[in-house]
Amino acid sequence: MALIECIPNVSDGRRAELIERIASAVSVTPGVRLLDHSSDPSHNRSVFTFAGDTDGVERAIMAVFDVAVANIDLRSHKGEHPRLGAVDVVPFVPIEGVTMADCVALAKKVGAAVAARFGVPVYLYEEASDNPVRKNLEDIRRGEFEGLPTKMATAGWAPDFGPATPHPTAGASVIGARMALVAYNINLATDRLDVAKKIASAIRHSSGGYRYVKAAGFKLEDRGIVQVSMNLTNYEKTPIFRVFETVKREAARYGVAILESEIVGLVPSAALTAAAEFYLQMAGFTPQQILETRLRAESTPHQQDQQSVIQSVIN
Amino acid sequence: MALIECIPNVSDGRRAELIERIASAVSVTPGVRLLDHSSDPSHNRSVFTFAGDTDGVERAIMAVFDVAVANIDLRSHKGEHPRLGAVDVVPFVPIEGVTMADCVALAKKVGAAVAARFGVPVYLYEEASDNPVRKNLEDIRRGEFEGLPTKMATAGWAPDFGPATPHPTAGASVIGARMALVAYNINLATDRLDVAKKIASAIRHSSGGYRYVKAAGFKLEDRGIVQVSMNLTNYEKTPIFRVFETVKREAARYGVAILESEIVGLVPSAALTAAAEFYLQMAGFTPQQILETRLRAESTPHQQDQQSVIQSVIN
Repeated sequence: MALIECIPNVSDGRRAELIERIASAVSVTPGVRLLDHSSDPSHNRSVFTFAGDTDGVERAIMAVFDVAVANIDLRSHKGEHPRLGAVDVVPFVPIEGVTMADCVALAKKVGAAVAARFGVPVYLYEEASDNPVRKNLEDIRRGEFEGLPTKMATAGWAPDFGPATPHPTAGASVIGARMALVAYNINLATDRLDVAKKIASAIRHSSGGYRYVKAAGFKLEDRGIVQVSMNLTNYEKTPIFRVFETVKREAARYGVAILESEIVGLVPSAALTAAAEFYLQMAGFTPQQILETRLRAESTPHQQDQQSVIQSVIN
Repeated sequence: MALIECIPNVSDGRRAELIERIASAVSVTPGVRLLDHSSDPSHNRSVFTFAGDTDGVERAIMAVFDVAVANIDLRSHKGEHPRLGAVDVVPFVPIEGVTMADCVALAKKVGAAVAARFGVPVYLYEEASDNPVRKNLEDIRRGEFEGLPTKMATAGWAPDFGPATPHPTAGASVIGARMALVAYNINLATDRLDVAKKIASAIRHSSGGYRYVKAAGFKLEDRGIVQVSMNLTNYEKTPIFRVFETVKREAARYGVAILESEIVGLVPSAALTAAAEFYLQMAGFTPQQILETRLRAESTPHQQDQQSVIQSVIN
């Protein structure tokens, strides 16, 4: 069974009634489950997290556009967070039984449908974009809603779907596909901020570290310790355990130990299972051996294998 | 949402048509999913694995009894595996959102229902039994079907439910609750069987090792290596990572390294997550942070917390 996560960022974080209507539009959609939603009044932005099968996720995101396009007017929208449209960003994330290519196809299908139904221009981003200068969200969003008329008239910035002018109130939307993001922090048993900053610099992509790590060093004043705070943007290609072991080794060079690590928010089961596989040196393990994964898949009869027989003679 | 696993062992491993009828009786039951079934002709025994919510699991096991009691005659049953009844053993296993006490209550409810509907006497076992000498399956099954009339007439061996005489064709059933069993092997980079046997002896309960480990040493002739083959009977109280680390340390004492480890068959997600938590020194982690677990639970809105905000400033 396909399981896709979708995390639309909507440009309103203040009108509780509107936010509830959007949440409810997702909740009542068959085939999806609303996992979480949070709103930030100073950003004036809400993030909804839901997951389900391909058809369910498509229906739910169209329902989000329905409510948001009818009720949000970017001409009067103010907030700290940069934004381009009423439904600002829509990533589709493969979780289980589905490939990145499936999520790219879904992003393109939804992009075409949004342009056709609402007249909102759509830019594809990340894995869904074939254009190397239009993959990065920040590049696409630069200039924001107010700069859209000029930007869209510039060579190379026609949208992937819909009109070459912004929707008068809903602006434009950025829709794409990416891997699940894991927010991961490692706390060090020291109050030396320079150590956290040096380690962050060593492991993050921008300064020569791992390809899918963003990192910064922070002081946790109330606890008298420091933290290497990270976003892992592709936990398959840059797995948690490799980052952990590298931070541990780099910290040892300064005589510092790891106090603990923590995952902020949600994490796909596979990101944790990979750590178990690594440390336990597991051979030949497949996700189909996880009972909960099997519960969502087809059942298959099999002959008792040799190893099961060995098990039965143990006393 | 409650998730309970049930693994009935049925005394027929040869009649494919009957085995399919039992499998199908489970498959068509709402609220449960048949995860696996395997049959061993020489044991003349089939094992079905299914999971679901409390009501679904209860309906499915009654459906298994329906077909098995009507079609299996222990008077003419022959096979290598010891057995007491047509539906020989029925364990209920807590997987998620459910306690051992819930599974004990379900075992007692099903035991009473089986006795009432089919006239089959039922013995409770493991966690469902309050009688210390009637917890162990082997003790209850000793004497097998043929010895039941004598055993049941013996003081202390009246069944927990139903008549004090065996069902003429279906014998008696043993129903109870236990933790999920993890079949776990560690392969050593050596051909020295004595090392595998010494390590098995060091870690298994029966010779002074961990409370919930059964273990034996084997030679894997075709690969020229040896294996410590284990059943972990309570992965919460004796976790996989602790067993792995102990085997690794004991092997090092003989100059032997661990080649790999392997899980045979199904494993609950929590057993692997615990290993990730241990090795990554994770603090404050809850199962509700696993995306797939959240998918089966209620959705809850929340305010963006401080750490999420920290994450958003990382570049």
